[in-house]
Amino acid sequence: MRPPESNEARILLGPGPSMVAPRVMDALRRPILGYLDPDLFVVLFEIQIGLRQLFRTENEITFALPGTGMSGAECALANLIEPSDRVLVVSSGFFGDRLVEIARRCGAEVYPVRSQWGRPVEPEDIESLLKQHPRWKLIAMVHAETSTGVHQPVEPIAELARRYEALLVVDAVTSLGGMPVEVDGWGIDICFSASQKCIGAPPGLAPITISPRAWNSIQKRRTACQSWYLDLRLLWDYWSEPHVYHHTTPVSLMYALRAALEMVEQEGLPARYERHHHQAERLWSGLQELRLELLIPPEHRLPMLTVVRIPEGIPDQEFRLRLLREFNIEIGGGLGEWRGQVWRIGLMGHSCLAHNVDLLLSAMNTLLHQYRSA
Amino acid sequence: MRPPESNEARILLGPGPSMVAPRVMDALRRPILGYLDPDLFVVLFEIQIGLRQLFRTENEITFALPGTGMSGAECALANLIEPSDRVLVVSSGFFGDRLVEIARRCGAEVYPVRSQWGRPVEPEDIESLLKQHPRWKLIAMVHAETSTGVHQPVEPIAELARRYEALLVVDAVTSLGGMPVEVDGWGIDICFSASQKCIGAPPGLAPITISPRAWNSIQKRRTACQSWYLDLRLLWDYWSEPHVYHHTTPVSLMYALRAALEMVEQEGLPARYERHHHQAERLWSGLQELRLELLIPPEHRLPMLTVVRIPEGIPDQEFRLRLLREFNIEIGGGLGEWRGQVWRIGLMGHSCLAHNVDLLLSAMNTLLHQYRSA
Repeated sequence: MRPPESNEARILLGPGPSMVAPRVMDALRRPILGYLDPDLFVVLFEIQIGLRQLFRTENEITFALPGTGMSGAECALANLIEPSDRVLVVSSGFFGDRLVEIARRCGAEVYPVRSQWGRPVEPEDIESLLKQHPRWKLIAMVHAETSTGVHQPVEPIAELARRYEALLVVDAVTSLGGMPVEVDGWGIDICFSASQKCIGAPPGLAPITISPRAWNSIQKRRTACQSWYLDLRLLWDYWSEPHVYHHTTPVSLMYALRAALEMVEQEGLPARYERHHHQAERLWSGLQELRLELLIPPEHRLPMLTVVRIPEGIPDQEFRLRLLREFNIEIGGGLGEWRGQVWRIGLMGHSCLAHNVDLLLSAMNTLLHQYRSA
Repeated sequence: MRPPESNEARILLGPGPSMVAPRVMDALRRPILGYLDPDLFVVLFEIQIGLRQLFRTENEITFALPGTGMSGAECALANLIEPSDRVLVVSSGFFGDRLVEIARRCGAEVYPVRSQWGRPVEPEDIESLLKQHPRWKLIAMVHAETSTGVHQPVEPIAELARRYEALLVVDAVTSLGGMPVEVDGWGIDICFSASQKCIGAPPGLAPITISPRAWNSIQKRRTACQSWYLDLRLLWDYWSEPHVYHHTTPVSLMYALRAALEMVEQEGLPARYERHHHQAERLWSGLQELRLELLIPPEHRLPMLTVVRIPEGIPDQEFRLRLLREFNIEIGGGLGEWRGQVWRIGLMGHSCLAHNVDLLLSAMNTLLHQYRSA
């Protein structure tokens, strides 16, 4: 028997998905079109334009994969890596370690460079490893590490990638749309993201962009890409003229992504970044007033994902379930090393609004007061 | 500048996607839930129950992949195949050949058995190949070959798989929900499908079911599955208790799939199969009245996909574009060997209704008359 369902939108303040604006939700309901319908190609074309603006790139090969954000990681690595390629992965947490695992499954010789959880990796540590071996195929990194809330700056690593003639793959799943991501300006070769975080669309699509340098490397592969489903050449043959059939476009999600990208364009990137920054600052000062410890120092802190230590004596799961059931608010628990130790609070896309910050702080205040006075 | 868009639903009578019923469309618009929300798990649980009924299986491991139908093919093969495994692929067309290609990219030693296009593969041809080599890991086949409209019966091949101790992988992308698919009754080890054909949901998900025998084989792998995104062990760890995070569920598509499965259950499988069969017969006799040649003999013909030869002197692309622009109807063109030679007419799921057959026949009659009298 199904429990009664609420039609009231959950207030999503976890690590994603974020809330979806009504006009983006409405777009989901547009009539289905076939994968070769000329009217669909208009939608796909507009998505490409919107994504180029968002990624800040002129890369022609810019589109959305028919899978979640993690399909972007697999796509980037499976298309670039050939067996025994040397790959350096910059990892400061759970999602960096996923890149290590995926690169290994692509047959690469993988060299992880790790930081202590809660701190970014130092470029010097990366360079000292780069020096030790010749011929690096690529460096992969996470821009916004969602397990720790740490910002790993791209530019110093891009500079190393250029100097050591390696391609640079950047996971911008959490950052894209909420803070600057400069694909061309920084020199990123493949950048991928996800529809459901700071872009503000429903989950299920992975925006991706490929530099001419990366595309050239893919064209020169000696072996077929091990993934047929995520083979960039086949995918691009579909997205570009003359649109050779590869898979059936998840058209409802594409309508929604287009609508979300329109909202991004209307707001403007500087205003959007400023909104994420400003609401994060309101959240941080509110959390500190509640005597909650922010784990990441301000200079490494992400605006869209804030990590706080769970106070002594507060039961993690029960607290989050009460937030959900009594206040209709979701926040995230810890991952990996920080499981049970932290809460992860997201302010992403359409979730990143002043009244959501207020609702969360008020709810946490009520609950913390109950536990602390018990 | 965007062209004006119609909100009137396209009449989708191609090889899929098919039309989506209003209550399934409405389900898309339910509020987003996080991937660990207890209320989401209710949705996922109900999808599993609905899919087990539809696949006619008691397989515990039955769920929907976060990708299109082709992700089902890649998932099935990448999880079962280890490097150098011997794999037989039964191919009577374009989609059978895709299984050949995907199995090769998984590192298998692949032996295709092909038929002439428009005919199923004969079990004797399969057995004579099976006899020539020892130790077959699996046999893969397409139940309903969407490029030709040919029905490849599963039972004789399942019998061979048992006899030669191979696992059986069946692509039921086009058949599931429109004609009998008996996973347990026939002895299929992995069966996969797609949300957007005879199930009647929007595109973007791939239902899949795994037998205990196949699961055992996956548990005993010596190497990691080359796909992390489609690794069945990680996916199942998320779908089953205690729900370990792997990817962000495309929750909007899951709502719609659940609603579509409810409609399947309410109609009942025998009535649903009969509807597909009955409307196909109406279509076939109507097409013959229009003097169009059905390419597949009745005993090999699929109910949900009918292939007709394009009559001499009718321009393929122009004819289909006029159907689309003047009558709002989509039918499919030919694929592979039959490109430019045939039209593919689908009657799947919510598209498979008497008035759609009538509209198509009437539109084709009008257009054919114009061309023939020109």
